[in-house]
Amino acid sequence: MSSKKDTPQRLFRTIALIGKYQSRDVAEAVTTLAGFLREQGYSVLVEHGTANAIGTAGYVVASYDDIGLRADLAIVLGGDGTMLHTARRLAGHEVPLVGVNQGRLGFMTDIARGHMLEKVTDILEGRFQREARLMLTAEVLRDGERVFYNPAFNDVVINKGDLGRMIEMQVQVDGEYLYNLRADGLIVCTPTGSTAYSLSANGPILHPSVPGIGMVPLCPHALSNRPITVGDSCVIEITLVRPHDGRVHCDGQARFDLHGGDILRIARCQHSVILLHPPGYSYFHMLREKLHWSETPKKH
Amino acid sequence: MSSKKDTPQRLFRTIALIGKYQSRDVAEAVTTLAGFLREQGYSVLVEHGTANAIGTAGYVVASYDDIGLRADLAIVLGGDGTMLHTARRLAGHEVPLVGVNQGRLGFMTDIARGHMLEKVTDILEGRFQREARLMLTAEVLRDGERVFYNPAFNDVVINKGDLGRMIEMQVQVDGEYLYNLRADGLIVCTPTGSTAYSLSANGPILHPSVPGIGMVPLCPHALSNRPITVGDSCVIEITLVRPHDGRVHCDGQARFDLHGGDILRIARCQHSVILLHPPGYSYFHMLREKLHWSETPKKH
Amino acid sequence: MSSKKDTPQRLFRTIALIGKYQSRDVAEAVTTLAGFLREQGYSVLVEHGTANAIGTAGYVVASYDDIGLRADLAIVLGGDGTMLHTARRLAGHEVPLVGVNQGRLGFMTDIARGHMLEKVTDILEGRFQREARLMLTAEVLRDGERVFYNPAFNDVVINKGDLGRMIEMQVQVDGEYLYNLRADGLIVCTPTGSTAYSLSANGPILHPSVPGIGMVPLCPHALSNRPITVGDSCVIEITLVRPHDGRVHCDGQARFDLHGGDILRIARCQHSVILLHPPGYSYFHMLREKLHWSETPKKH
Amino acid sequence: MSSKKDTPQRLFRTIALIGKYQSRDVAEAVTTLAGFLREQGYSVLVEHGTANAIGTAGYVVASYDDIGLRADLAIVLGGDGTMLHTARRLAGHEVPLVGVNQGRLGFMTDIARGHMLEKVTDILEGRFQREARLMLTAEVLRDGERVFYNPAFNDVVINKGDLGRMIEMQVQVDGEYLYNLRADGLIVCTPTGSTAYSLSANGPILHPSVPGIGMVPLCPHALSNRPITVGDSCVIEITLVRPHDGRVHCDGQARFDLHGGDILRIARCQHSVILLHPPGYSYFHMLREKLHWSETPKKH
Repeated sequence: MSSKKDTPQRLFRTIALIGKYQSRDVAEAVTTLAGFLREQGYSVLVEHGTANAIGTAGYVVASYDDIGLRADLAIVLGGDGTMLHTARRLAGHEVPLVGVNQGRLGFMTDIARGHMLEKVTDILEGRFQREARLMLTAEVLRDGERVFYNPAFNDVVINKGDLGRMIEMQVQVDGEYLYNLRADGLIVCTPTGSTAYSLSANGPILHPSVPGIGMVPLCPHALSNRPITVGDSCVIEITLVRPHDGRVHCDGQARFDLHGGDILRIARCQHSVILLHPPGYSYFHMLREKLHWSETPKKH
Repeated sequence: MSSKKDTPQRLFRTIALIGKYQSRDVAEAVTTLAGFLREQGYSVLVEHGTANAIGTAGYVVASYDDIGLRADLAIVLGGDGTMLHTARRLAGHEVPLVGVNQGRLGFMTDIARGHMLEKVTDILEGRFQREARLMLTAEVLRDGERVFYNPAFNDVVINKGDLGRMIEMQVQVDGEYLYNLRADGLIVCTPTGSTAYSLSANGPILHPSVPGIGMVPLCPHALSNRPITVGDSCVIEITLVRPHDGRVHCDGQARFDLHGGDILRIARCQHSVILLHPPGYSYFHMLREKLHWSETPKKH
Repeated sequence: MSSKKDTPQRLFRTIALIGKYQSRDVAEAVTTLAGFLREQGYSVLVEHGTANAIGTAGYVVASYDDIGLRADLAIVLGGDGTMLHTARRLAGHEVPLVGVNQGRLGFMTDIARGHMLEKVTDILEGRFQREARLMLTAEVLRDGERVFYNPAFNDVVINKGDLGRMIEMQVQVDGEYLYNLRADGLIVCTPTGSTAYSLSANGPILHPSVPGIGMVPLCPHALSNRPITVGDSCVIEITLVRPHDGRVHCDGQARFDLHGGDILRIARCQHSVILLHPPGYSYFHMLREKLHWSETPKKH
Repeated sequence: MSSKKDTPQRLFRTIALIGKYQSRDVAEAVTTLAGFLREQGYSVLVEHGTANAIGTAGYVVASYDDIGLRADLAIVLGGDGTMLHTARRLAGHEVPLVGVNQGRLGFMTDIARGHMLEKVTDILEGRFQREARLMLTAEVLRDGERVFYNPAFNDVVINKGDLGRMIEMQVQVDGEYLYNLRADGLIVCTPTGSTAYSLSANGPILHPSVPGIGMVPLCPHALSNRPITVGDSCVIEITLVRPHDGRVHCDGQARFDLHGGDILRIARCQHSVILLHPPGYSYFHMLREKLHWSETPKKH
């Protein structure tokens, strides 16, 4: 392998750093990593809010939009929440993302803080698995007009509203009537989101390579209701039946209040989230760790 | 549309009829349909066992292998069990299948007996939806030799054996270690099979267009175990950990006893099952009917 | 059996009628029943809101409190919601309740409108099964003071609040620490409530004769969480961990907003709900009807 | 507290030791404990199979029946399986049981090996919680004759037989028809058994103080089937519908093959299992440990 500093064949030139705001550990990790990258001759951008929270001086500060336009790689330091936020803010740019967790393995932040510099070096030098993950878009149509639009990396969730009563939804898939669902709500999730909220609602795990979208009802009134996985090219339309009111959340972050008659339309985002995993990454290993599955055979 | 009898552009020439053996209603339907098809100038084959059970005289009797080689279309009269059996016997030939039920809608037999002639006519004249459904193959390797091989249209199920004790399985997907599962068993199912046994075991529904394979544990010892859907190109290898004994079933029809150390290898069959659906067929409508979901909004 | 009008051994003298307000069918049934009872010499009270909605003239109008003090029997016309409401309003009086549904069998309203007069006669003449059903009380303690108090016949539900984020609850049973639960909420239900909302959340059915209280988590973060049934003499205390906000509902009817630090204390109500069932009533028959279980063996 | 050796107010005089047979660790623990007890003047019985496996010389060897008649206390060394076996063998004698595990906390063996002598001393000196746990009896009636009878401390399980096909069962509770269940089987469990096999089948946890019996279907064909808890005085009769064959297991230990038409009758055993728990024992603490529930609040 060629020397690090003067090779013209570098894969990445401009690297953005994005950190969880309220964490002292993250602040220290960002500072360390910024110094490390600059020393190696990379151009470093620090995300605006991150820079404010951390007080990193001496680095170029950039908005998410700037990062989307200029960065070749974004390194996210924090947990899955920070990764979700970043993926949503950079949706449309396909800047490859790398996740560094702060001690506890995340579903998406696979580099441990203790191995940060070594694993980041691996990635900078081309030793990584590249994975394109499906993302969704959610839009709300009210009287024919779009009143809400947001991307979602994990899930779009429609939920009962202030009254706290079961809502009724009419669901169509690619224009075909599926059912009228009376429930607390409905989770529509990507394979990435299948290990998040959906899992608590008895949804199935979808391997990221499966081109599918999960639909998982929340406390459905009809006991024969079950999660359904449809193809990732499907357009899902959920009409909130009057007089119910409800809410929609994207990744538990963006939120919008729904009225009866509103149509929530969910489809695959034309852009994917690009994740770069360090050598040795294994999706199944991560699942075993996170879900406390046995690593090795045990005796009964 | 051209007249039925003398058009040279017919889609099908030789049509096989396969019926559920122990049903008088089916016998009558087979006889009616055979006469109808002969009258229209089609060449009719009656499956050997069907002919024996029914006593149909005057038609060419054919084995499943003959049907696979000679028929352009096979019409199956009975329930989902007959359809499963036919799909497994014709695996490898991709003869298009049409299902006629005897009064109760099946997951795969979508033509009602009462509309048989009309709907079959639709199909003969080209008015149908063609659907290619994923099929699996299961093989058992013992000391390096293949001791069992069978196709499965719904599912391959590994189950505890005679002792009735929980078994332990080591599971790999595409050569990557997934987990050691201690459970009553494991269902590996196609999208078609996701609405069969898997559904009773809390498995998710997979729309037939999703290229995925479901893995649904039966009474897993670890409470955090969950169904997982992997891509349909995956090879799943399940090693029965010694000293457990178990069984494998394909579609609940073929069965084989497993010893500790045996490897059950499951992969996508290179051939698909081709289903022809009559006009008006809707997968979601069928689900609503079979699972008693509400057709229209109801008041609470 | 003695004649109806002049027997001094009547079981009931004053009978209250309570009807679902916004239903024309109910209005007619109330009028019919009131006339029938008066004709037989019973003293009839019509609940105030019912009388307003229905316009029943010529009968004594009474508040729920009056009914609690004066009625020997209350006949409820409507659905399970009306029954729940009545049970909560009359909690503490133990006036026996009889439920008349409007066509669709309820979990608690077991007399069909079509058989109303006949079945009510049965009950008036002493042909009934008497059943005492467990009721709960919920109170909220804030800084040591009680800020909410309500009975619940089905369930007390603590739920996430406006933010729509998972809440954390510290749960104690009879002063013993159970766990910290992170979830969308927690249902605490009576056996009666076990077939209501709890069932949608995968809770178990508790036969009304089991002296137990069900605790069913809503979308728990820990996958090994499970419904737990504890004895009916237990006091359950749920502290909402700061900084979460939440809500509590009793029977989906009374509602109160919770702050972090609030303690929700749930215990058995010292009074029971007394239900009178007509001859032929069967809890299991009702379950089969409501949950679409097979009445008789069916062939596969 | 009085001195240990010469007090005439001893609670126990004759103490039986029962150990898991194939464990060297257990052998050592039995020897240690036997010496400790003899030194204190207790009369020690070593269960016959335990003595054979361990080679304990110099102690009185006794059958389970002898132990039932003569022992004031039985100390069980091993895991939950050994405890189950002992409870079933001593059913009818109500000899109090104490469980010592070998490192891994059991649901019923609550004394850790490392604290054995100290905790056993606590119990000998009267510092314990006494708990009476419900036990079941299972009997099979064939053509009016009893062909099988066994107690069960965890559960009685009826399961599909050799063919591996779903079975159909007609279920009655106290002579009242419940339903015809088509499923892989049905678990009937005590509160103690509710945390064993039943939990893997999505059954609810029943606190040991709840006088209930759980009925948990295994992969029921009807999706609206759910676990039901009935009162502990109920007699449950399960008729295996012809032509199905099945099996019944008690605690996964005793087994019997069932024919179509056989009636499996399950009822509360007239004797209870008496468990003595050391100071500091907490059922909820045990659940948290075994089910990996959080001990303390964690941040999301």
